[in-house]
Amino acid sequence: MVDKVNLAEKLAAVDAHFSPKIVGQLNDLKLEVVKARGEFVWHTHPDTDDFFLVLDGRLTIQLRDRDVELGPGELFVVPRGVEHCPKADEEAHVLLIEPLGTPNTGDAGGPLTAVEERI
Amino acid sequence: MVDKVNLAEKLAAVDAHFSPKIVGQLNDLKLEVVKARGEFVWHTHPDTDDFFLVLDGRLTIQLRDRDVELGPGELFVVPRGVEHCPKADEEAHVLLIEPLGTPNTGDAGGPLTAVEERI
Repeated sequence: MVDKVNLAEKLAAVDAHFSPKIVGQLNDLKLEVVKARGEFVWHTHPDTDDFFLVLDGRLTIQLRDRDVELGPGELFVVPRGVEHCPKADEEAHVLLIEPLGTPNTGDAGGPLTAVEERI
Repeated sequence: MVDKVNLAEKLAAVDAHFSPKIVGQLNDLKLEVVKARGEFVWHTHPDTDDFFLVLDGRLTIQLRDRDVELGPGELFVVPRGVEHCPKADEEAHVLLIEPLGTPNTGDAGGPLTAVEERI
């Protein structure tokens, strides 16, 4: 039986930054919470758009031609194939949605690549 | 060029209740804001899950065997094929996500069926 998800409660169980945790599923998409702080890595998802909704704090989605600044209650969908790099000067809490199996680091790989884990 | 979406600003432009408006797209899914007040209609989406995230107020997702009570920052995904009926005693603001082309009233149809409209 699926149950509701309290996003703040889930986030309280997360320590590491840029380590998304799966909290639910919508068809073939994973719903993830992540704490962001610092700068992530420039990457591209060639096969999917990438959904960010800021729940708390401020997140900058750096694109190659502009920055998108998000506060609480603001969302941005990075189109597939568009290179981007999230960063947050202070800790930000974010809801992410992308297809199951999508690596958080896209085509870039590297040490920040997370294993998919449910909490 | 896609831009960010401020959900509160979008909701401020909506008057009618249970009249979802498209504010963005994630692959083949529509991102919608809706103001809920009163009781919707019992319905089922046979081919898709149905995502609800409460932004403001309180929403009850009635299922045939239980009620799921959601407050701000709480989400629930109604599994495909599960009959449900949202209701809100006071106005609630909600983010909905489901595939483009999915009727809000599912298999039930009727006068509350909304035309897909972007704002």
